[in-house]
Amino acid sequence: MTLPDASPVTVRRALLSVSDKTGLIDLARALAARGVELLSTGGSAKALRDAGLPVRDVADLTGFPEIMDGRVKTLHPKVHGGLLGRRGTDDAVMAEHGIEAIDLLVLNLYPFERVSSDPDARFADIIENIDIGGPAMLRAAAKNFAHVAVATDPAQYADLLAELDAGGGALSAQTRYALAVAAFNRVAQYDARISDVLSAIAAPSDDGARQRALFPAQANGSFVKLMDLRYGENPHQQAAFYRDLHPAPGSLATFTQLQGKELSYNNIADADAAWECVRQFDAPACVIVKHANPCGVAVAADVGAAYGHAHATDPTSAFGGILAFNRPLDATTVQTILDRQFVEVLIAPDYEPAALEACANKANVRVLRIPLAPASAGFIDCKRVGSGLLMQTADDRIVTLEDLRVVTRKVPTDTQFDDLLFAWKVARFVKSNAIVYARDTRTIGVGAGQMSRVYSARIAGIKAIDAGLAVPGSVMASDAFFPFRDGLDSAAEAGIAAVIQPGGSMRDAEVIAAADEHGIAMVFTGVRHFRH
Amino acid sequence: MTLPDASPVTVRRALLSVSDKTGLIDLARALAARGVELLSTGGSAKALRDAGLPVRDVADLTGFPEIMDGRVKTLHPKVHGGLLGRRGTDDAVMAEHGIEAIDLLVLNLYPFERVSSDPDARFADIIENIDIGGPAMLRAAAKNFAHVAVATDPAQYADLLAELDAGGGALSAQTRYALAVAAFNRVAQYDARISDVLSAIAAPSDDGARQRALFPAQANGSFVKLMDLRYGENPHQQAAFYRDLHPAPGSLATFTQLQGKELSYNNIADADAAWECVRQFDAPACVIVKHANPCGVAVAADVGAAYGHAHATDPTSAFGGILAFNRPLDATTVQTILDRQFVEVLIAPDYEPAALEACANKANVRVLRIPLAPASAGFIDCKRVGSGLLMQTADDRIVTLEDLRVVTRKVPTDTQFDDLLFAWKVARFVKSNAIVYARDTRTIGVGAGQMSRVYSARIAGIKAIDAGLAVPGSVMASDAFFPFRDGLDSAAEAGIAAVIQPGGSMRDAEVIAAADEHGIAMVFTGVRHFRH
Repeated sequence: MTLPDASPVTVRRALLSVSDKTGLIDLARALAARGVELLSTGGSAKALRDAGLPVRDVADLTGFPEIMDGRVKTLHPKVHGGLLGRRGTDDAVMAEHGIEAIDLLVLNLYPFERVSSDPDARFADIIENIDIGGPAMLRAAAKNFAHVAVATDPAQYADLLAELDAGGGALSAQTRYALAVAAFNRVAQYDARISDVLSAIAAPSDDGARQRALFPAQANGSFVKLMDLRYGENPHQQAAFYRDLHPAPGSLATFTQLQGKELSYNNIADADAAWECVRQFDAPACVIVKHANPCGVAVAADVGAAYGHAHATDPTSAFGGILAFNRPLDATTVQTILDRQFVEVLIAPDYEPAALEACANKANVRVLRIPLAPASAGFIDCKRVGSGLLMQTADDRIVTLEDLRVVTRKVPTDTQFDDLLFAWKVARFVKSNAIVYARDTRTIGVGAGQMSRVYSARIAGIKAIDAGLAVPGSVMASDAFFPFRDGLDSAAEAGIAAVIQPGGSMRDAEVIAAADEHGIAMVFTGVRHFRH
Repeated sequence: MTLPDASPVTVRRALLSVSDKTGLIDLARALAARGVELLSTGGSAKALRDAGLPVRDVADLTGFPEIMDGRVKTLHPKVHGGLLGRRGTDDAVMAEHGIEAIDLLVLNLYPFERVSSDPDARFADIIENIDIGGPAMLRAAAKNFAHVAVATDPAQYADLLAELDAGGGALSAQTRYALAVAAFNRVAQYDARISDVLSAIAAPSDDGARQRALFPAQANGSFVKLMDLRYGENPHQQAAFYRDLHPAPGSLATFTQLQGKELSYNNIADADAAWECVRQFDAPACVIVKHANPCGVAVAADVGAAYGHAHATDPTSAFGGILAFNRPLDATTVQTILDRQFVEVLIAPDYEPAALEACANKANVRVLRIPLAPASAGFIDCKRVGSGLLMQTADDRIVTLEDLRVVTRKVPTDTQFDDLLFAWKVARFVKSNAIVYARDTRTIGVGAGQMSRVYSARIAGIKAIDAGLAVPGSVMASDAFFPFRDGLDSAAEAGIAAVIQPGGSMRDAEVIAAADEHGIAMVFTGVRHFRH
């Protein structure tokens, strides 16, 4: 074995075979203008001919016709020998068998992903859209990157042509390697999707595709690295941040960093919690996250007021926190924040120019912009366990006023209903067991992450007192049901006026009786929000 | 397009081409005995001939020799037409071109995974071990499962032969589909690994393989479903539990369930925390987990004593908990547990027969066996964020006595050193901010999941008092440094005698001075254990 030849490869013959014809003609015209011989098949060949370009059919090269409705056309030694032949090593055998070197492959694959995503797709159509010849050629050309270049995405064409222009018709070893890796990456994505889809269908049948399991027998994921991180959750851990192949609009992975130091692992984890929490509110809102928990949340007439109320919940924890807003930030609010506290990360859908100027001299503050968009359906959450992975659909069930069931004699007032729904939205993002005290759509105390619910309630109360916030008249949200009446008894003692919780305990009657006794209004959501 | 033919396929011609020759001869002999024509290539053909079996070379079928050191041998229309031809539809074109139907493909791939895992592998060897012809044939045969069967793992041979025997030499549509899915799954794994390896190497060079990044530009994972779950973290979420392709010995994914209801999402998540925590201790230990946090941990002379002490830390939270042990369980201990509390999951390396009998009438108790094994290196942890993934190396840094740096005038006693290291091991598994009070290698109070450290300390103290456990004389572990002296001041007030923490705060001097003032011994680990 020898090292790949590092010298540039002059492109003299190209094979073009694409399912997505974007940019094909322009690319082919530029290649033809350079004197590159164009080989092609089927629809691509027709498109090139229609554009008046000289094309040689692969069937002419192979001396073998395209058969079986195109199932077999390029799976031939003349094609694969042309892609896999090692110039210098295999010249004699290529000459002996009339194998002509192919220097450039431009190919993308049958649209298996698109077809299989269509809920109405027939099983047979899904199977027919599994490309066999395409991946074989992509992989052959990519393996032989020492002598061949491969493009598999129209987005690559411009750079390819620019380098051919600059390099006198040649492509560098570095470019060929990068293209080869891109081709192997693409094939990995393609085969991952085939495995996902087919291993979710138990048996071949006409309606097999409709009976697809949500969780396939083999689940495959491909993620694209956005950045290496200085370290992981702790300094002795190494880490990197990846995005999905197709990030959902409005998700954290679509962020743009406008200024500040590089993000840390914990910044990103906390930013996600802060952003997902704040984007669920319609009115101007602020969420401050520390150690994976919201330590202050408020909805108000404007972002400035929202920040003031969120910060007041727990000023100690807010120090060095991650702050997220669901409205563009103005300079006054940013200045108020920076004057009041140390900030690790600031997140908003946008910033007024003056707001960015106000940050500019705080180099430590990481400023992220994430365009707002409605939450996407279909997100799959996962949690790593020892040599395993728990996968689940997202906890994206939204509880509205109509969903609430009043179970006590006392009915919440309109203001209390607002506060109950607000507290419920916050509780969804607090680590379980979660208890949230709230009043006037602002958090009064957040009790997070306890092994028994009664301690979460105690912590919420302690924190309210420490922050100098009066609990009486507040509402309480509990992410899961109260197993006993003691939770209501201590809520009453603290002055809680209304409660929102899932219900569903064996002792609901006892818990409702306790609320009635104390004159507390209580509503059930029928939905639980554990988050660990 | 028509539905795949559901009738059995009689195997008359088989192509055998394997890198792993396990079971090849026996399989081929059985096929030959049934009158199946054997086609083969290279090393497989030689092995079959050496065993005295009749073999026809693929080169004879194609009329084209194996060229380029085997790079091109099966990429030929006679092979792929034989694999892809639709019986009934393509008969005429097959006859016209002399394409003979291949009914069974037995093929496994060049050992790319093994070669690329070798830290000494040369870059060129890694590239050469990318199989091109193999995946092309696997994919062709799998796509055409309506007419062809494909085996890609020696573990499949026995069932294959059994079905041929039972079916008079034919294979059912259901079997062919299952084999096709297995082939696509295998190709997805193979291509995932190629993408992982190559996208971690920035440029082709002799030592490129050694300069591989830990986190590739595209990260691909494949997971095998162990079970669907009734629901996810909450009842409105759907979920499934997957394992790695090759689970590490001693990891949760290697469990066997000996009795009890099916595991829930939260059971599995908590079981992982409990098991990973308990397996780090050498002496008999018990860990009780609730809501992702250890609520009681103890090391003692035997598992019975360990359980008693762990339970005493927080009997309220222990109710309905997940209990893990690092020693086989005896009947007495199991009976004690079941008499004292409701248990969701019991985990141990093994069980005495009488211990299992003691559980037998508690159908709700899920009993898991996980064989003990040393923790494996190289585990990659991950955390899902919005349309993204945080990947990091595991937090597997073990702190030993030699690592500790005494920073106070007072030096811990030997007993305190034992307790400090014990509390440190527990703190590693408590959600941050984590504070653990311990004495006599048992937890006295666990303060978990708070947004500021001082509240975690207060909770640990409150819980100790509530459980009737005396704090004075205990040690305290903190998963990260104390930012201010207040943590030490309140520790002193509670009667804490010794402290273990990473150190590294800007105010370490102030914190050490506080410890010295209070006569507290303190050691620094230099290691942080955030866990969110």
